[in-house]
Amino acid sequence: MSVYAGAVQDLIDELGRLPGIGPKSAQRIAFHLLKVPREDALRLARAISEAKEKVSFCERCFNIAEGTLCGICTDERRDPHVVCVVEESRDIVAVERTREFRGRYHVLQGAISPIEGIGPDQLKVKELLARLEPEGITEVILCTNPNIEGEATAMYLGRLLQPLGISVTRIASGLPVGGDLEYADELTLGRALEGRRSFES
Amino acid sequence: MSVYAGAVQDLIDELGRLPGIGPKSAQRIAFHLLKVPREDALRLARAISEAKEKVSFCERCFNIAEGTLCGICTDERRDPHVVCVVEESRDIVAVERTREFRGRYHVLQGAISPIEGIGPDQLKVKELLARLEPEGITEVILCTNPNIEGEATAMYLGRLLQPLGISVTRIASGLPVGGDLEYADELTLGRALEGRRSFES
Repeated sequence: MSVYAGAVQDLIDELGRLPGIGPKSAQRIAFHLLKVPREDALRLARAISEAKEKVSFCERCFNIAEGTLCGICTDERRDPHVVCVVEESRDIVAVERTREFRGRYHVLQGAISPIEGIGPDQLKVKELLARLEPEGITEVILCTNPNIEGEATAMYLGRLLQPLGISVTRIASGLPVGGDLEYADELTLGRALEGRRSFES
Repeated sequence: MSVYAGAVQDLIDELGRLPGIGPKSAQRIAFHLLKVPREDALRLARAISEAKEKVSFCERCFNIAEGTLCGICTDERRDPHVVCVVEESRDIVAVERTREFRGRYHVLQGAISPIEGIGPDQLKVKELLARLEPEGITEVILCTNPNIEGEATAMYLGRLLQPLGISVTRIASGLPVGGDLEYADELTLGRALEGRRSFES
């Protein structure tokens, strides 16, 4: 329903194209932007343009970067021989938060999804293979999401990398810490059982 | 947590200021904008600037308008003597959708809320009073939301307008059409009973 005048409807339409923003939210945000002081709204417009201008992707790992290499790839304290493969740049944030990983990353920029027509060629897989030798990578941790697409991607990469003599691991699936057996779904509990380890005291 | 480089974090911060956008959504939208083609992201930035430039508020009713008067105020087929008072421009869309109302509107740009420190002076109340005589307004429909703030605003306006010899009505509260008695909350059902009408066959 476009009952609004041109510029307002244009704004609602553009906002509605963002992920997770439905028509109602788009309308709400548009009216919010029309109501706030001019400089506040323009600051958002500017932040978008500037991010598009300054930010691109790391030439090595395809993380977001202001420059040719990202902050992690330029950090010399990181171990260059271990690479954690993730689907998106935002997954790096999640892994970094654990403070458990001190190697480098490789961002696939997606996951294999036959339904959406995304195969290995649409992902940064070739680019990962090209890094192995020059960087002396000895271990690859497959850190894609534990869902159908992520598992398929991990499976594909595992089969591709293992014959090359690289140590390939997959992050564990199981009950979340602080979780409750009673509320765990069967799949997760099944994975937790499957992935059981010998008890260490 | 700001693990991102400057321009990306700026974008996430600005997006996070929008209503209904939490930190997670802001991050998700930011990465989406970084990933889409340049022109797509810039089209949103431009839509914001253009809306801020072109769109202001109707001088008469405070609806959004590209020009001094809004589309409804300039429409000569609308009855100028009946005015529907709403809180926000977006409420006009909801009323228009019913096709039940052919008068004009008055947008208060908010509702009375002591908690948020919003009193009648922060709303377009003076401006409503100033319209009454010049426009020959004979009926005012109080169409503010049926919540605490909206009711308080309706109450305030009703007391203000009725002594002026204007017919003041309030929209009905009650069960939604297609609703179910069993699932109605007590307040709504109470209102539905209170507002009962003589049966017409």
